[in-house]
Amino acid sequence: MFVVKVGGGSGINYESVCLDFASIVKAGKQAILVHGGSYETNLLSTKLGKPPRMVTSVSGYESRYTDRETLEIFEMVYCGKINKGVVQRLQQHGIDAIGLCGIDGRIFEGARKAAITILEKGRKKVLRDDYTGRVEKVNVNLIRLLLDHGYTPVLTPPAISYEGEAINVDGDRAAAILASALHVETLIILSNVPGLLKNIADETTLITNIRLCDIEHYVKYAQGRMRKKILGAVEAVQHGVKQVILADARIEEPISAALAGRGTVIH
Amino acid sequence: MFVVKVGGGSGINYESVCLDFASIVKAGKQAILVHGGSYETNLLSTKLGKPPRMVTSVSGYESRYTDRETLEIFEMVYCGKINKGVVQRLQQHGIDAIGLCGIDGRIFEGARKAAITILEKGRKKVLRDDYTGRVEKVNVNLIRLLLDHGYTPVLTPPAISYEGEAINVDGDRAAAILASALHVETLIILSNVPGLLKNIADETTLITNIRLCDIEHYVKYAQGRMRKKILGAVEAVQHGVKQVILADARIEEPISAALAGRGTVIH
Repeated sequence: MFVVKVGGGSGINYESVCLDFASIVKAGKQAILVHGGSYETNLLSTKLGKPPRMVTSVSGYESRYTDRETLEIFEMVYCGKINKGVVQRLQQHGIDAIGLCGIDGRIFEGARKAAITILEKGRKKVLRDDYTGRVEKVNVNLIRLLLDHGYTPVLTPPAISYEGEAINVDGDRAAAILASALHVETLIILSNVPGLLKNIADETTLITNIRLCDIEHYVKYAQGRMRKKILGAVEAVQHGVKQVILADARIEEPISAALAGRGTVIH
Repeated sequence: MFVVKVGGGSGINYESVCLDFASIVKAGKQAILVHGGSYETNLLSTKLGKPPRMVTSVSGYESRYTDRETLEIFEMVYCGKINKGVVQRLQQHGIDAIGLCGIDGRIFEGARKAAITILEKGRKKVLRDDYTGRVEKVNVNLIRLLLDHGYTPVLTPPAISYEGEAINVDGDRAAAILASALHVETLIILSNVPGLLKNIADETTLITNIRLCDIEHYVKYAQGRMRKKILGAVEAVQHGVKQVILADARIEEPISAALAGRGTVIH
């Protein structure tokens, strides 16, 4: 069994991802697809007159400021347009897919942050109306129940807080926790870059292989959203996943390419 | 076991519906919730510069003209905002709900209409880019699997065509076919009216009781969306559901009120 996380950035070829994923599942492998939706959420937010607001925490991680109104836009894109678009494509390719978000059956559960401290123009500021958090628990029983009956889960944020609120969580880290909880060998994290690059402007500077014990030497190359992908990858390998492959979602057969070692392999 | 369909019209008190539904399920009854989302879809379509276009078929039934772009807006509202809003509320009330649309696991399956003939300004016109159809099959196994493991399904259109396309279907008739397929005793169809009215402008003219054999005398009172509700109710009773109750979703404890006989009971 393996887990594929496909990002929600611009330029991602969802049709290729679904076609490749379907071929692999039809060949007899069990797999779970987790997806994002950030780029489309930005587009819809802007169209609806509520442009995205990205905030940077004091520890340097970027995230989407998610008040209740933003959360509804987020759900429309992630759980509506993208999730059902993926499920429809997989069904057309002969896979009996089921699309769920973290709220459904409490698949992704965690604590909502009571407040987050951000840096804005060099000054600290505390946000309290933000619905964000981090996945701490996965409903493995529900996922196994579906897999055992021939269904392929297609999962997406938001997650659910212990108080039952929908919370925006990082999809890469959610996929990492899922992969650990299911004891899978391989987690593939696809996005609109070929993997971890030494020079973000030059795709030929791809780092192909990282041993977990050497990760400290490479973390400095990760910028922006790649920082959370590396964090997720490290968490997954620390919790028993054999390898995490950061790879390119913009190409044909992106999952097969990643499984063949194309990308950054962290093990 | 019973099925509750709650409409998507304006004025519906979703909080009361969820609270009442949760109390009944916690008291030990198995139940399935099916919901709509037409009013919110109209709002979002209009905001996005694609106002809703309602068309009337030659047989007199009104439906939403659903091209591919409208279908995505439809999915954002039905499967995103409303479905996840309901699931979140039920989770907060202690029900382990799972939200699915008809595409997921092919829960609602049927034929897409190759073309629909509509009446526009008194003239016939054929539409071919319309993604609509009618539910003909229900994945009862998946619904039973979830119920048997303690999960409560929250279902919504769209359905899936035999070719794997998402199709807009009538939620009332989908709920009716679901209720028949599951052999439930009672189907409750809640909307923003108290039931079938003799005079649509006067809520005191509620028809409280209709035997299936007398339905011909009452069909003439059904106007607009009520025509499909009556059609769904008739189909359900013809296929073994003991009673269908058309009742008001705008009140407190709307499901308990309906079960107590408040509304139009068709049996």
